[in-house]
Amino acid sequence: MDGKFITIEGPDGSGKSTIIRQLKKHYSKKNVDILFTREPGGTQIGEEIRDIILDKKNTMLGKEAEALLYAASRAQHIHELIEPTLKAGKNIISDRFLLSSLAYQGVGRDLGVEKVREINEFGLKGIEPDLILFFYIDPETTLKRKFRHSKEDRLELEGNAFHNKVYNGYMELMNKYPKNIKKIDATQSISQVKRQTIEAIDAVLK
Amino acid sequence: MDGKFITIEGPDGSGKSTIIRQLKKHYSKKNVDILFTREPGGTQIGEEIRDIILDKKNTMLGKEAEALLYAASRAQHIHELIEPTLKAGKNIISDRFLLSSLAYQGVGRDLGVEKVREINEFGLKGIEPDLILFFYIDPETTLKRKFRHSKEDRLELEGNAFHNKVYNGYMELMNKYPKNIKKIDATQSISQVKRQTIEAIDAVLK
Repeated sequence: MDGKFITIEGPDGSGKSTIIRQLKKHYSKKNVDILFTREPGGTQIGEEIRDIILDKKNTMLGKEAEALLYAASRAQHIHELIEPTLKAGKNIISDRFLLSSLAYQGVGRDLGVEKVREINEFGLKGIEPDLILFFYIDPETTLKRKFRHSKEDRLELEGNAFHNKVYNGYMELMNKYPKNIKKIDATQSISQVKRQTIEAIDAVLK
Repeated sequence: MDGKFITIEGPDGSGKSTIIRQLKKHYSKKNVDILFTREPGGTQIGEEIRDIILDKKNTMLGKEAEALLYAASRAQHIHELIEPTLKAGKNIISDRFLLSSLAYQGVGRDLGVEKVREINEFGLKGIEPDLILFFYIDPETTLKRKFRHSKEDRLELEGNAFHNKVYNGYMELMNKYPKNIKKIDATQSISQVKRQTIEAIDAVLK
Protein backbone atom coordinates (compact mmCIF):
# COMPACT_ATOMS: atom_id res chain seq x y z
CA MET A 1 0.00 0.00 0.00
CA ASP A 2 1.39 3.33 -1.01
CA GLY A 3 -0.97 5.78 0.69
CA LYS A 4 -0.41 6.81 4.31
CA PHE A 5 -3.14 6.42 6.90
CA ILE A 6 -3.22 9.04 9.67
CA THR A 7 -5.80 9.21 12.45
CA ILE A 8 -6.56 12.06 14.84
CA GLU A 9 -7.69 11.06 18.30
CA GLY A 10 -8.59 12.77 21.54
CA PRO A 11 -11.47 13.48 23.92
CA ASP A 12 -14.47 15.66 23.02
CA GLY A 13 -13.46 19.31 23.25
CA SER A 14 -9.80 18.68 22.41
CA GLY A 15 -10.08 20.91 19.34
CA LYS A 16 -9.76 18.18 16.70
CA SER A 17 -12.42 19.69 14.44
CA THR A 18 -10.84 23.16 14.42
CA ILE A 19 -7.40 21.76 13.55
CA ILE A 20 -8.80 19.44 10.87
CA ARG A 21 -10.39 22.45 9.14
CA GLN A 22 -6.97 24.15 9.21
CA LEU A 23 -5.28 21.02 7.84
CA LYS A 24 -7.71 20.86 4.93
CA LYS A 25 -6.89 24.47 3.97
CA HIS A 26 -3.15 23.97 4.46
CA TYR A 27 -2.81 20.82 2.32
CA SER A 28 -5.21 22.11 -0.30
CA LYS A 29 -3.02 25.23 -0.76
CA LYS A 30 0.09 23.03 -0.98
CA ASN A 31 -1.63 20.74 -3.53
CA VAL A 32 -1.04 17.72 -1.32
CA ASP A 33 -3.72 15.15 -2.10
CA ILE A 34 -5.28 13.91 1.16
CA LEU A 35 -8.72 12.38 1.69
CA PHE A 36 -10.29 13.67 4.91
CA THR A 37 -12.84 11.40 6.54
CA ARG A 38 -14.39 10.75 9.95
CA GLU A 39 -15.77 8.12 12.32
CA PRO A 40 -18.34 7.00 13.00
CA GLY A 41 -19.34 7.51 9.39
CA GLY A 42 -17.17 8.22 6.35
CA THR A 43 -19.43 6.21 4.01
CA GLN A 44 -23.14 6.49 3.35
CA ILE A 45 -23.89 3.31 5.30
CA GLY A 46 -21.50 4.46 8.03
CA GLU A 47 -23.35 7.77 8.32
CA GLU A 48 -26.65 5.86 8.70
CA ILE A 49 -25.03 3.89 11.54
CA ARG A 50 -23.68 7.17 13.01
CA ASP A 51 -27.22 8.56 13.10
CA ILE A 52 -28.37 5.61 15.24
CA ILE A 53 -25.39 5.94 17.62
CA LEU A 54 -25.60 9.69 18.18
CA ASP A 55 -29.41 10.13 18.13
CA LYS A 56 -30.38 11.69 21.47
CA LYS A 57 -33.65 9.71 21.36
CA ASN A 58 -31.77 6.39 21.53
CA THR A 59 -31.40 6.42 25.33
CA MET A 60 -32.09 2.67 25.41
CA LEU A 61 -28.98 1.78 23.36
CA GLY A 62 -27.00 -0.81 25.35
CA LYS A 63 -23.23 -0.54 25.64
CA GLU A 64 -22.54 -3.81 23.79
CA ALA A 65 -24.78 -2.83 20.86
CA GLU A 66 -23.16 0.62 20.82
CA ALA A 67 -19.67 -0.89 20.60
CA LEU A 68 -20.79 -3.26 17.81
CA LEU A 69 -22.32 -0.34 15.86
CA TYR A 70 -19.02 1.59 16.07
CA ALA A 71 -17.22 -1.56 14.88
CA ALA A 72 -19.73 -2.00 12.01
CA SER A 73 -19.28 1.60 10.89
CA ARG A 74 -15.49 1.13 11.02
CA ALA A 75 -15.63 -2.16 9.08
CA GLN A 76 -17.66 -0.48 6.33
CA HIS A 77 -15.22 2.48 6.35
CA ILE A 78 -12.27 0.09 5.87
CA HIS A 79 -14.06 -1.96 3.20
CA GLU A 80 -15.55 0.81 1.09
CA LEU A 81 -13.17 3.75 1.56
CA ILE A 82 -9.93 3.28 3.54
CA GLU A 83 -8.56 0.11 1.93
CA PRO A 84 -9.34 1.07 -1.70
CA THR A 85 -8.01 4.63 -1.18
CA LEU A 86 -4.73 3.49 0.38
CA LYS A 87 -4.33 0.83 -2.32
CA ALA A 88 -4.77 3.56 -4.94
CA GLY A 89 -1.80 5.34 -3.35
CA LYS A 90 -3.76 8.19 -1.78
CA ASN A 91 -3.26 9.49 1.77
CA ILE A 92 -6.08 9.55 4.35
CA ILE A 93 -6.64 11.54 7.53
CA SER A 94 -9.50 10.25 9.69
CA ASP A 95 -11.13 12.18 12.53
CA ARG A 96 -11.18 9.30 15.09
CA PHE A 97 -10.51 5.58 14.54
CA LEU A 98 -9.92 2.44 16.64
CA LEU A 99 -8.33 4.23 19.62
CA SER A 100 -11.59 6.12 20.25
CA SER A 101 -13.49 2.82 20.63
CA LEU A 102 -10.84 1.40 22.96
CA ALA A 103 -11.03 4.55 25.15
CA TYR A 104 -14.79 5.26 25.00
CA GLN A 105 -16.23 1.73 24.86
CA GLY A 106 -13.36 -0.35 26.28
CA VAL A 107 -12.57 1.92 29.25
CA GLY A 108 -15.42 4.48 29.43
CA ARG A 109 -18.14 1.82 29.22
CA ASP A 110 -16.13 -0.84 31.12
CA LEU A 111 -16.39 -3.35 28.26
CA GLY A 112 -12.66 -4.12 28.38
CA VAL A 113 -10.01 -2.89 25.95
CA GLU A 114 -9.15 -6.36 24.61
CA LYS A 115 -12.76 -7.39 23.98
CA VAL A 116 -13.48 -4.16 22.12
CA ARG A 117 -10.26 -4.60 20.13
CA GLU A 118 -11.41 -8.12 19.19
CA ILE A 119 -14.79 -7.13 17.73
CA ASN A 120 -13.07 -4.32 15.82
CA GLU A 121 -10.24 -6.44 14.42
CA PHE A 122 -12.92 -8.62 12.80
CA GLY A 123 -13.44 -5.79 10.26
CA LEU A 124 -10.03 -4.09 10.04
CA LYS A 125 -8.48 -6.35 7.34
CA GLY A 126 -5.17 -5.87 9.18
CA ILE A 127 -5.03 -2.14 8.44
CA GLU A 128 -3.30 0.04 11.06
CA PRO A 129 -2.60 3.79 11.03
CA ASP A 130 0.90 4.90 10.02
CA LEU A 131 0.47 7.75 12.50
CA ILE A 132 -1.95 8.36 15.37
CA LEU A 133 -2.05 11.99 16.47
CA PHE A 134 -3.33 12.12 20.02
CA PHE A 135 -4.66 15.52 21.14
CA TYR A 136 -3.76 15.58 24.81
CA ILE A 137 -5.92 17.77 27.08
CA ASP A 138 -7.12 17.60 30.68
CA PRO A 139 -10.86 17.03 31.34
CA GLU A 140 -11.32 20.43 33.07
CA THR A 141 -10.24 22.35 29.97
CA THR A 142 -12.40 20.25 27.60
CA LEU A 143 -15.33 20.82 29.93
CA LYS A 144 -14.90 24.61 29.72
CA ARG A 145 -14.64 24.38 25.92
CA LYS A 146 -17.74 22.21 25.64
CA PHE A 147 -19.90 24.84 27.33
CA ARG A 148 -19.38 27.05 24.28
CA HIS A 149 -21.10 24.48 22.03
CA SER A 150 -24.87 24.41 21.67
CA LYS A 151 -25.49 21.21 19.70
CA GLU A 152 -24.84 18.11 21.73
CA ASP A 153 -25.25 14.48 20.70
CA ARG A 154 -25.96 11.37 22.80
CA LEU A 155 -22.27 10.83 23.60
CA GLU A 156 -21.52 14.45 24.43
CA LEU A 157 -24.49 14.44 26.81
CA GLU A 158 -22.80 11.81 29.00
CA GLY A 159 -21.80 13.09 32.45
CA ASN A 160 -18.35 14.19 33.63
CA ALA A 161 -17.68 10.84 35.31
CA PHE A 162 -17.88 9.14 31.89
CA HIS A 163 -15.65 11.72 30.20
CA ASN A 164 -13.08 11.48 33.01
CA LYS A 165 -13.01 7.72 32.53
CA VAL A 166 -12.52 8.14 28.78
CA TYR A 167 -9.64 10.55 29.52
CA ASN A 168 -8.03 8.01 31.86
CA GLY A 169 -8.61 5.38 29.17
CA TYR A 170 -6.69 7.41 26.63
CA MET A 171 -3.84 7.91 29.12
CA GLU A 172 -3.70 4.16 29.81
CA LEU A 173 -3.70 3.37 26.07
CA MET A 174 -0.93 5.88 25.37
CA ASN A 175 1.37 3.96 27.73
CA LYS A 176 0.21 0.53 26.63
CA TYR A 177 0.27 0.98 22.84
CA PRO A 178 2.83 3.70 22.12
CA LYS A 179 3.39 2.41 18.55
CA ASN A 180 2.93 5.13 15.93
CA ILE A 181 1.39 7.50 18.49
CA LYS A 182 2.42 11.15 18.60
CA LYS A 183 1.11 13.23 21.50
CA ILE A 184 0.12 16.83 20.82
CA ASP A 185 -0.51 19.17 23.77
CA ALA A 186 -3.96 20.50 22.85
CA THR A 187 -3.99 23.14 25.60
CA GLN A 188 -1.62 25.22 23.46
CA SER A 189 -2.78 27.95 21.08
CA ILE A 190 -4.45 26.88 17.82
CA SER A 191 -1.44 28.03 15.79
CA GLN A 192 0.96 26.01 17.95
CA VAL A 193 -1.21 22.87 17.75
CA LYS A 194 -1.56 23.36 14.00
CA ARG A 195 2.21 23.76 13.49
CA GLN A 196 3.08 20.63 15.50
CA THR A 197 0.33 18.61 13.79
CA ILE A 198 1.54 19.57 10.31
CA GLU A 199 5.16 18.77 11.25
CA ALA A 200 4.14 15.29 12.40
CA ILE A 201 2.03 14.64 9.28
CA ASP A 202 4.74 15.91 6.93
CA ALA A 203 7.28 13.60 8.55
CA VAL A 204 5.06 10.60 7.69
CA LEU A 205 4.08 11.74 4.19
CA LYS A 206 7.72 12.22 3.14
CA MET B 1 -34.43 -17.09 34.92
CA ASP B 2 -37.94 -18.49 34.83
CA GLY B 3 -39.06 -17.69 31.27
CA LYS B 4 -38.19 -20.06 28.42
CA PHE B 5 -36.39 -18.82 25.32
CA ILE B 6 -37.29 -20.55 22.05
CA THR B 7 -35.88 -19.63 18.65
CA ILE B 8 -37.11 -20.65 15.20
CA GLU B 9 -34.46 -21.07 12.55
CA GLY B 10 -34.26 -22.09 8.93
CA PRO B 11 -33.51 -20.84 5.43
CA ASP B 12 -35.65 -18.28 3.59
CA GLY B 13 -38.76 -19.98 2.25
CA SER B 14 -38.89 -22.63 4.96
CA GLY B 15 -42.32 -21.40 6.07
CA LYS B 16 -41.28 -19.93 9.43
CA SER B 17 -43.54 -16.88 9.08
CA THR B 18 -46.66 -18.93 8.29
CA ILE B 19 -46.10 -21.22 11.27
CA ILE B 20 -45.33 -18.31 13.61
CA ARG B 21 -48.68 -16.74 12.72
CA GLN B 22 -50.35 -20.04 13.59
CA LEU B 23 -48.42 -20.26 16.88
CA LYS B 24 -49.58 -16.78 17.89
CA LYS B 25 -53.23 -17.77 17.35
CA HIS B 26 -52.81 -21.13 19.07
CA TYR B 27 -51.17 -19.81 22.26
CA SER B 28 -53.41 -16.78 22.42
CA LYS B 29 -56.48 -19.07 22.41
CA LYS B 30 -54.90 -21.22 25.12
CA ASN B 31 -54.06 -18.12 27.20
CA VAL B 32 -50.36 -19.06 27.25
CA ASP B 33 -48.36 -15.86 27.66
CA ILE B 34 -45.57 -15.80 25.05
CA LEU B 35 -43.74 -12.77 23.67
CA PHE B 36 -43.18 -13.15 19.91
CA THR B 37 -40.24 -11.24 18.48
CA ARG B 38 -37.87 -11.35 15.51
CA GLU B 39 -34.32 -10.74 14.29
CA PRO B 40 -32.85 -8.61 13.02
CA GLY B 41 -35.02 -6.17 14.95
CA GLY B 42 -37.28 -6.78 17.92
CA THR B 43 -36.53 -3.37 19.46
CA GLN B 44 -36.87 0.10 17.97
CA ILE B 45 -33.08 0.46 17.63
CA GLY B 46 -32.89 -3.08 16.27
CA GLU B 47 -35.50 -2.27 13.63
CA GLU B 48 -33.42 0.78 12.58
CA ILE B 49 -30.42 -1.55 12.20
CA ARG B 50 -32.62 -4.03 10.28
CA ASP B 51 -33.54 -1.28 7.82
CA ILE B 52 -29.85 -0.69 7.03
CA ILE B 53 -29.15 -4.42 6.60
CA LEU B 54 -32.12 -5.24 4.35
CA ASP B 55 -32.26 -2.00 2.31
CA LYS B 56 -31.90 -2.99 -1.36
CA LYS B 57 -30.01 0.27 -1.99
CA ASN B 58 -27.17 -0.80 0.35
CA THR B 59 -25.35 -2.85 -2.28
CA MET B 60 -22.01 -1.55 -0.93
CA LEU B 61 -22.47 -3.14 2.51
CA GLY B 62 -19.37 -5.27 3.23
CA LYS B 63 -19.72 -8.72 4.74
CA GLU B 64 -17.84 -7.83 7.96
CA ALA B 65 -19.99 -4.73 8.55
CA GLU B 66 -23.11 -6.79 7.79
CA ALA B 67 -22.16 -9.42 10.39
CA LEU B 68 -21.42 -6.69 12.98
CA LEU B 69 -24.80 -5.05 12.31
CA TYR B 70 -26.60 -8.37 12.90
CA ALA B 71 -24.57 -8.77 16.12
CA ALA B 72 -25.45 -5.18 17.18
CA SER B 73 -29.16 -5.75 16.57
CA ARG B 74 -28.95 -9.00 18.58
CA ALA B 75 -27.04 -7.35 21.46
CA GLN B 76 -29.73 -4.66 21.70
CA HIS B 77 -32.44 -7.36 21.54
CA ILE B 78 -30.81 -9.22 24.46
CA HIS B 79 -30.23 -6.03 26.48
CA GLU B 80 -33.56 -4.32 26.02
CA LEU B 81 -36.05 -7.16 25.49
CA ILE B 82 -34.88 -10.78 25.87
CA GLU B 83 -33.01 -10.61 29.18
CA PRO B 84 -35.60 -8.44 31.03
CA THR B 85 -38.51 -10.53 29.67
CA LEU B 86 -36.98 -13.87 30.69
CA LYS B 87 -36.04 -12.44 34.11
CA ALA B 88 -39.65 -11.37 34.54
CA GLY B 89 -40.62 -15.03 34.04
CA LYS B 90 -42.19 -14.63 30.61
CA ASN B 91 -41.58 -16.95 27.64
CA ILE B 92 -40.17 -15.72 24.31
CA ILE B 93 -40.29 -17.08 20.77
CA SER B 94 -37.91 -15.36 18.35
CA ASP B 95 -38.06 -15.64 14.57
CA ARG B 96 -34.30 -16.21 13.98
CA PHE B 97 -31.37 -15.82 16.43
CA LEU B 98 -27.66 -16.67 16.62
CA LEU B 99 -27.85 -19.78 14.40
CA SER B 100 -28.94 -17.62 11.45
CA SER B 101 -25.78 -15.51 11.73
CA LEU B 102 -23.58 -18.60 11.97
CA ALA B 103 -25.21 -20.06 8.82
CA TYR B 104 -25.63 -16.87 6.74
CA GLN B 105 -22.55 -14.88 7.77
CA GLY B 106 -20.24 -17.60 9.10
CA VAL B 107 -20.79 -20.10 6.26
CA GLY B 108 -22.73 -18.21 3.54
CA ARG B 109 -20.34 -15.23 3.56
CA ASP B 110 -17.24 -17.33 4.38
CA LEU B 111 -16.45 -15.31 7.51
CA GLY B 112 -15.98 -18.45 9.62
CA VAL B 113 -18.44 -19.84 12.17
CA GLU B 114 -16.15 -19.30 15.18
CA LYS B 115 -15.34 -15.67 14.32
CA VAL B 116 -19.01 -14.83 13.84
CA ARG B 117 -19.83 -16.61 17.10
CA GLU B 118 -17.16 -14.50 18.86
CA ILE B 119 -18.52 -11.09 17.81
CA ASN B 120 -22.02 -12.25 18.77
CA GLU B 121 -21.06 -13.63 22.18
CA PHE B 122 -19.79 -10.14 23.04
CA GLY B 123 -23.45 -9.08 23.34
CA LEU B 124 -25.26 -12.26 24.43
CA LYS B 125 -24.76 -11.91 28.22
CA GLY B 126 -24.48 -15.70 28.30
CA ILE B 127 -28.09 -16.23 27.19
CA GLU B 128 -28.79 -19.36 25.12
CA PRO B 129 -32.10 -20.68 23.77
CA ASP B 130 -33.79 -23.46 25.74
CA LEU B 131 -35.02 -24.80 22.40
CA ILE B 132 -33.96 -24.15 18.80
CA LEU B 133 -36.55 -25.27 16.26
CA PHE B 134 -34.83 -25.83 12.95
CA PHE B 135 -37.11 -25.87 9.92
CA TYR B 136 -35.41 -28.35 7.63
CA ILE B 137 -36.05 -27.95 3.90
CA ASP B 138 -34.05 -28.56 0.72
CA PRO B 139 -32.97 -25.53 -1.37
CA GLU B 140 -35.03 -26.60 -4.41
CA THR B 141 -38.30 -26.46 -2.48
CA THR B 142 -37.50 -23.10 -0.85
CA LEU B 143 -36.64 -21.75 -4.29
CA LYS B 144 -40.07 -22.75 -5.64
CA ARG B 145 -41.78 -21.18 -2.63
CA LYS B 146 -39.80 -17.95 -2.97
CA PHE B 147 -41.11 -17.38 -6.51
CA ARG B 148 -44.56 -16.85 -5.01
CA HIS B 149 -43.33 -13.82 -3.05
CA SER B 150 -43.19 -10.39 -4.63
CA LYS B 151 -41.35 -8.30 -2.01
CA GLU B 152 -37.69 -9.18 -1.76
CA ASP B 153 -35.04 -7.65 0.48
CA ARG B 154 -31.25 -7.39 0.01
CA LEU B 155 -30.65 -10.84 1.49
CA GLU B 156 -33.43 -12.58 -0.42
CA LEU B 157 -32.03 -11.13 -3.63
CA GLU B 158 -28.79 -13.09 -3.19
CA GLY B 159 -28.26 -15.79 -5.81
CA ASN B 160 -28.88 -19.52 -5.48
CA ALA B 161 -25.19 -20.23 -4.85
CA PHE B 162 -25.39 -18.14 -1.66
CA HIS B 163 -28.60 -19.79 -0.48
CA ASN B 164 -27.19 -23.26 -1.16
CA LYS B 165 -24.17 -22.37 0.97
CA VAL B 166 -26.43 -21.15 3.77
CA TYR B 167 -28.32 -24.45 3.56
CA ASN B 168 -25.09 -26.43 3.80
CA GLY B 169 -24.10 -24.16 6.69
CA TYR B 170 -27.25 -25.06 8.59
CA MET B 171 -26.64 -28.77 7.93
CA GLU B 172 -23.07 -28.46 9.22
CA LEU B 173 -24.22 -26.59 12.33
CA MET B 174 -26.94 -29.17 13.07
CA ASN B 175 -24.27 -31.86 13.36
CA LYS B 176 -21.76 -29.68 15.18
CA TYR B 177 -24.02 -28.08 17.79
CA PRO B 178 -26.91 -30.49 18.34
CA LYS B 179 -27.59 -29.04 21.85
CA ASN B 180 -31.23 -27.99 22.30
CA ILE B 181 -31.90 -28.29 18.56
CA LYS B 182 -35.09 -29.95 17.32
CA LYS B 183 -35.36 -30.59 13.58
CA ILE B 184 -38.75 -30.12 11.93
CA ASP B 185 -39.28 -31.38 8.38
CA ALA B 186 -40.65 -28.24 6.72
CA THR B 187 -41.56 -29.99 3.47
CA GLN B 188 -44.58 -31.48 5.28
CA SER B 189 -48.05 -29.91 5.18
CA ILE B 190 -48.62 -26.74 7.26
CA SER B 191 -50.83 -28.64 9.72
CA GLN B 192 -48.17 -31.31 10.24
CA VAL B 193 -45.40 -28.73 10.76
CA LYS B 194 -47.66 -26.79 13.11
CA ARG B 195 -48.50 -29.88 15.18
CA GLN B 196 -44.86 -30.95 15.57
CA THR B 197 -43.78 -27.41 16.40
CA ILE B 198 -46.40 -27.03 19.12
CA GLU B 199 -45.48 -30.43 20.59
CA ALA B 200 -41.84 -29.40 20.83
CA ILE B 201 -42.68 -26.01 22.39
CA ASP B 202 -45.12 -27.49 24.88
CA ALA B 203 -42.48 -30.00 26.01
CA VAL B 204 -40.16 -27.09 26.90
CA LEU B 205 -42.81 -24.85 28.48
CA LYS B 206 -43.96 -27.62 30.86
